[in-house]
Amino acid sequence: MNEIPADIDIDKIAELFHTTKQRVRGLLNRRTLHKTPDGNLILDKSISGVESGTNVFLKNYEVVCGFPKIQRAMMLQSALAAHFSCKSVAVEEKMNGYNTRVAYIDNKIIALTRGGHTCPYTTEKAQTLIPKEIFTDHPGIVLCGEMAGPDSPYVPKNIYNVKSLEFFLFDIREKNTGMPLSVAAKYNIAEQYNITCTKLFGVYPLTEAYNKITRIIKNLGACGREGVVIKDPAMKQPPLKYTSSQSNCSDLQHAFTYYHDYAKSFFYSRIAREAFQSVEWNETPEEIQSRCIQLGEGILQPMITTIKKIQEEEKISENVQILVKSLNTAEKFKEHLRILGIDAIFHRPEKINNEYLVKIQKINQRTNDKTESILTGNTW
Amino acid sequence: MNEIPADIDIDKIAELFHTTKQRVRGLLNRRTLHKTPDGNLILDKSISGVESGTNVFLKNYEVVCGFPKIQRAMMLQSALAAHFSCKSVAVEEKMNGYNTRVAYIDNKIIALTRGGHTCPYTTEKAQTLIPKEIFTDHPGIVLCGEMAGPDSPYVPKNIYNVKSLEFFLFDIREKNTGMPLSVAAKYNIAEQYNITCTKLFGVYPLTEAYNKITRIIKNLGACGREGVVIKDPAMKQPPLKYTSSQSNCSDLQHAFTYYHDYAKSFFYSRIAREAFQSVEWNETPEEIQSRCIQLGEGILQPMITTIKKIQEEEKISENVQILVKSLNTAEKFKEHLRILGIDAIFHRPEKINNEYLVKIQKINQRTNDKTESILTGNTW
Repeated sequence: MNEIPADIDIDKIAELFHTTKQRVRGLLNRRTLHKTPDGNLILDKSISGVESGTNVFLKNYEVVCGFPKIQRAMMLQSALAAHFSCKSVAVEEKMNGYNTRVAYIDNKIIALTRGGHTCPYTTEKAQTLIPKEIFTDHPGIVLCGEMAGPDSPYVPKNIYNVKSLEFFLFDIREKNTGMPLSVAAKYNIAEQYNITCTKLFGVYPLTEAYNKITRIIKNLGACGREGVVIKDPAMKQPPLKYTSSQSNCSDLQHAFTYYHDYAKSFFYSRIAREAFQSVEWNETPEEIQSRCIQLGEGILQPMITTIKKIQEEEKISENVQILVKSLNTAEKFKEHLRILGIDAIFHRPEKINNEYLVKIQKINQRTNDKTESILTGNTW
Repeated sequence: MNEIPADIDIDKIAELFHTTKQRVRGLLNRRTLHKTPDGNLILDKSISGVESGTNVFLKNYEVVCGFPKIQRAMMLQSALAAHFSCKSVAVEEKMNGYNTRVAYIDNKIIALTRGGHTCPYTTEKAQTLIPKEIFTDHPGIVLCGEMAGPDSPYVPKNIYNVKSLEFFLFDIREKNTGMPLSVAAKYNIAEQYNITCTKLFGVYPLTEAYNKITRIIKNLGACGREGVVIKDPAMKQPPLKYTSSQSNCSDLQHAFTYYHDYAKSFFYSRIAREAFQSVEWNETPEEIQSRCIQLGEGILQPMITTIKKIQEEEKISENVQILVKSLNTAEKFKEHLRILGIDAIFHRPEKINNEYLVKIQKINQRTNDKTESILTGNTW
């Protein structure tokens, strides 16, 4: 059993988590709730009423709640009917970047990843992109958004017409409770402080939503974009997400490149989405055939490429980059990846105007090892 | 903790399993080793030196060892080199049926499935197909083979020119130790008692094996047949298996029909085989493309068909049949499936000459439930 650090106020956390002291001690002992290198607490697994990725900042016992998992519609029309009882729904773009929560803690803007780690790189970007006033005026809010662009060290994408990395707000939530503001209240505040939001396609009567969203999804897919989040405008009911076939196939393509680094359920769920979408869209044999080809290619081509590369003694890695103002941020980011267990090689920084571009090679060790082992004659 | 049945001689089992009495008690308490309805013992998980599926027949404490898992070559050429140190290898057909061990216990021929259950249907068939003399002359042997044909309740196939269900011998092993006879000794005995063996393609010098097997595999694939087992003729080294692309894709097609009843690793490993085979065969872009199409179709088409069927309120089931001499065997087989946890509907027997054909619908409940749930709007 681990020693619980003496500076942790168990009573206070039990109160914040609406649970018992015994439960909190159990979480700390099993390290489900554990201290980060910067001395705060992260909850690694959801417990009743508290989302995984929730942070407790020990200085003032402020809580930034983990971002709740959004349920996915597989058959859109029936899911809309089963999920929403509101009259109309707001349809916003689901972007392909990484989920970030930006909060004001101890008079500083900090940015947290989905898992609850303070990311030094995202924090540097957030401090530039988000005006401090939004937090001095509203200290109790958390900005939840997608960080997207080519200089993303997690999900680099060039599809959003972003130069380096931008923050796209999708939710404003309350510190401590995690309660979301209404869609209208969010846009109000965003506009006031000039913060970019994810695209709002419109607010549609529930009866029209299926046709509207289907058209939107097909268009998004054609531009290689991910999908939509469908919201009760009052945010009283949890949102629903739905994605394009192109996004599923591109996920598969990425995942099969690093085939042994991903969970099998990642592949499986994306394949299932294709089948249900095809049935819901009542596709012709020709449309089904072209979906089959896309799926087959998305799976096999990247895997074949990976095996061939390793056969030629190349290492499989994901190449990403960060653009930082301070080399100290790059150093701290390196340590951050190390803590996350990501094996990465940082290249020498290149000075670009008043910033530094640092190229990073993330090594997918499991895929490298498994492929090498098979190439040298090991069995599956 | 369960009560260990008083009639079990722990000392004797410890001796047979080359382990301690304490270990045996542990296995019995955890029901890893448990009593079957006919009063014998089955080992459900491999333990050091004893294969899963091993049976202990309590009357004489005779052991029929579980059939060992055969390792699979992913890259054939390097696997042959890494796996075998013998000068030549025997290449036999790996058939697509179900693994059966036939033994002589208490003066009766019985047939065991891979998991170690005495299958009443397979036993009836074995008693017809295998002459008793082989066992009265050699009471210490176990015949390991594939049951294949259209009247297979597990894997019905029409590809082997079999009328109902035939036994194809591939290994003869010793009772109690599980040690295999050499390939030559097996053929000797088989010939003497007129027992059909799986096809022997030839015995090839190890240096030529890769080219020979590759040609064999391509031909087998073209006829929809599964693959080969590669053996040290002396059976001192464990065999290796290797399968055709067509067999992988047909497995996938079957599994994606019942997509929620199969383990995710079943899909994943078959997809990986396709990628490695393509690289090993140094395929052209056109060949890769046609493999992608086959893979994509093998995955998506059956899943789409399943979803549509359930949308039309049809139940997804596997339709199989058995051909029995005695209706009592059909009754016992029904009970056998129930014990295995397989949900099946038995149709009214049809008399055909002096036998009864019984059609059976095996219900894939998990796939039915999951699909229905999504069709009514539940999220993934």
